[in-house]
Amino acid sequence: MKKQKPSLPKGTRDFAPEVMVKRNLILDTIKSTFKKFGFLPLETPSMERLDVLTGKYGDEGDQLIFKILNSGDFLKDIHTEHLEEGYKKMTPKIAEKALRYDLTVPFARFVAMNRGVISFPFKRYQIQPVWRGDRPQKGRYREFYQCDADVVGTNSLICEAEIVYMMNEVFDHLGIKDFTIKINNRKILSGIAEMIGEADRLVDLCVAIDKLDKIGEEKVMDELLERGFSNDAVQKLYPIFKIDGDLQNKVDFLKEEFGDVPIGQKGLEELETVLNYLDSFAGGEKGTWQKLHLEFDITLARGLNYYTGAIFEVKAHHVSIGSISGGGRYDDLTSAFGLPDMSGIGFSFGVDRIYDVMEELGLFPQGISTTTQVMFTNFDQASELYSLPILRTFREAGFNCEVYPDSSKLKKQLNYANAKGIPFVILLGSEEMQTGQLTLKNMQTGEQDKQSIEEILAKLKAWQA
Amino acid sequence: MKKQKPSLPKGTRDFAPEVMVKRNLILDTIKSTFKKFGFLPLETPSMERLDVLTGKYGDEGDQLIFKILNSGDFLKDIHTEHLEEGYKKMTPKIAEKALRYDLTVPFARFVAMNRGVISFPFKRYQIQPVWRGDRPQKGRYREFYQCDADVVGTNSLICEAEIVYMMNEVFDHLGIKDFTIKINNRKILSGIAEMIGEADRLVDLCVAIDKLDKIGEEKVMDELLERGFSNDAVQKLYPIFKIDGDLQNKVDFLKEEFGDVPIGQKGLEELETVLNYLDSFAGGEKGTWQKLHLEFDITLARGLNYYTGAIFEVKAHHVSIGSISGGGRYDDLTSAFGLPDMSGIGFSFGVDRIYDVMEELGLFPQGISTTTQVMFTNFDQASELYSLPILRTFREAGFNCEVYPDSSKLKKQLNYANAKGIPFVILLGSEEMQTGQLTLKNMQTGEQDKQSIEEILAKLKAWQA
Repeated sequence: MKKQKPSLPKGTRDFAPEVMVKRNLILDTIKSTFKKFGFLPLETPSMERLDVLTGKYGDEGDQLIFKILNSGDFLKDIHTEHLEEGYKKMTPKIAEKALRYDLTVPFARFVAMNRGVISFPFKRYQIQPVWRGDRPQKGRYREFYQCDADVVGTNSLICEAEIVYMMNEVFDHLGIKDFTIKINNRKILSGIAEMIGEADRLVDLCVAIDKLDKIGEEKVMDELLERGFSNDAVQKLYPIFKIDGDLQNKVDFLKEEFGDVPIGQKGLEELETVLNYLDSFAGGEKGTWQKLHLEFDITLARGLNYYTGAIFEVKAHHVSIGSISGGGRYDDLTSAFGLPDMSGIGFSFGVDRIYDVMEELGLFPQGISTTTQVMFTNFDQASELYSLPILRTFREAGFNCEVYPDSSKLKKQLNYANAKGIPFVILLGSEEMQTGQLTLKNMQTGEQDKQSIEEILAKLKAWQA
Repeated sequence: MKKQKPSLPKGTRDFAPEVMVKRNLILDTIKSTFKKFGFLPLETPSMERLDVLTGKYGDEGDQLIFKILNSGDFLKDIHTEHLEEGYKKMTPKIAEKALRYDLTVPFARFVAMNRGVISFPFKRYQIQPVWRGDRPQKGRYREFYQCDADVVGTNSLICEAEIVYMMNEVFDHLGIKDFTIKINNRKILSGIAEMIGEADRLVDLCVAIDKLDKIGEEKVMDELLERGFSNDAVQKLYPIFKIDGDLQNKVDFLKEEFGDVPIGQKGLEELETVLNYLDSFAGGEKGTWQKLHLEFDITLARGLNYYTGAIFEVKAHHVSIGSISGGGRYDDLTSAFGLPDMSGIGFSFGVDRIYDVMEELGLFPQGISTTTQVMFTNFDQASELYSLPILRTFREAGFNCEVYPDSSKLKKQLNYANAKGIPFVILLGSEEMQTGQLTLKNMQTGEQDKQSIEEILAKLKAWQA
């Protein structure tokens, strides 16, 4: 073995313990909320057959999928003429498998493959890494976790209402108090397109609408004219761009504008039903949904090819970090895998971004860099042996503990505890061994005093609570 | 998109919810034990640079590493003459990255890269999938989880003792009562090789010793003679093969046999120190280690090139499933990455095998197929709306609940709860809405009776405890 200076593939990260502990706080919160709402875990393999993944993310997406070289002699059937055809044609000949690009396609593949044994409605959550060959940049990685929950096999709008509650519960538990859940409905956007006489140009319209808060309505209207929207259509849009007031105002206004555009009216009706469910959750009090950080935003567009009903996006305030959660309803999850009409709704949490928000706003609890609560010092063989049964007692009482494994200088041992962020150290020298009174040192305050094992356990329990 | 009949890459698996819930029981138990003993989580990327992985697992291992095709035009610098050189030479030209093959090499890479910021001794656990291009067969997969814990930067034999306690705690919590932790020490094996005058043939000796319980001592001795061991050496081995009695007997016997072979004596001394630590953990009572399922087995060999001190292996009784845990001490984790003399000890749990043991012995708790505890039925819009605030109350009380999202036939809803293994269903019809007394149905016993919300919550809490 020759010596090497090791490094990481670009766009990938190690998660050191002090980062993992924080990430786990976020993931555990999300998982327990998913479970509380009846979602169950699913895991799919990191590798899928290349043909399962290609054609699902557009040409650009296909290029970003990481392909896995076939095992053994992958050149067996490759000849000079294949070389001349270029790398795109070569790829499927030497790579049958690829790393998943998201969790949605593997989920769809799973549902289609197991249609006969799944009890629908099927509620699953899935928290696993995905891989994309994007050019790495700040906040964009080639390996990152996705954190999805979906319900398939039902059109019930209760699901939409529960998603709003789940988002609230997760951010509330994490201490993110200031955030907005933007809600819109794809049918409302379709209604707008139809109303202005451009029903077949929904995608163009949405791309433009999406820019409203960045470039303003004048420039958006210019762009639409350039793209060939009629003057009349663009004029009809103007009042919609200027739409203002609270949610009820907006809904009332659109109801009138839509007139007899059924898809638009249907979108508004769905929105109102969701709000009604949200109110019912709170015991029927009208308008309770307003406490749920919800905002109706007709400029929210979000991956239109896929979504067909409600769409969501969550942004945290006081930070300039992209959306930290989002999702929406779809009509067709699995027809690419031969199972038509599988409708449902899904959403996800952006773990990396939630991490950044919490870091930037200082929301991680103090002293979260470790899960270890107590370290026992180690002065010599006698104190070492004396500490072991006590260590065991502490562990059996539920505390995460360690004994410093070597009889090093006390300063070195305390530095270790400090660097790790271990909150308590128990000093155990000859005096302590004689009296049975151990010295408990609080590493944050520096305070230390002598106490019996029972007193220390009681103190730690109080501290933990 | 053309329709396709989807399938999985061979050797990979989906983990459906009912399997995931059981796997999580195992993983949560392992994680909480790791934490209790002061280990902290680490995660490394799935991809490593190919040169970080190659040369660490032997030629055969290198072939089993999954390589990732470079993004973009990987054929850019490839010409006909490269094609003629064959696939092995081609691989590093078109694949810079590969999927990790185990967690040890990435851990070593992490330690070497972060030597300046890590506080040693460094105790980390790591639970992530690894990938190997083995030919798939029963119980052998191309993607599987490893579950490792290591302490590096200390030679303290307390670590060995703590590993024995951790193994005991995990299997005890999982209900695996009958198992044996085999322990040996690489220095004892070296001592035996030296004692018989074949110090430079340790590997051959171990390969042969490893077969003792399969082919018996006669055949092993024949094999050693064939491999060129002297008659004298093989004769000297005979009494060691016949070694019998309890651990103390074996140690005493070997002490005498080793005479002035220092490495052998050192191995025995280490073994006795570990036992002494184990006794101390239990309050100093001599011989307590015997309650810890420990057995000294000089035929235990285990990956000799790497280990240099204690070695462990755990087998469950009453099943013919390979070892469910194992590990050992090493002198050199990181010199391949330019950091010499990094000693430590590591061990791991085999999640797939523990799962198989528990399945075969029927050790999973009844009704573990879901984490959802209560389902509310859905008769019509009125009952649906009525159930939502109650659902919320149940969730706030800490129960995992769901409402059936559609007003389907009761039979269908109960079938759903049954298929999912949800233990309780709350029936909520017009009568219940009038009286406020809800019908709680125990899905296991079929019993159902009417109770107030408070009574039901109290009942569920009692059931949960």
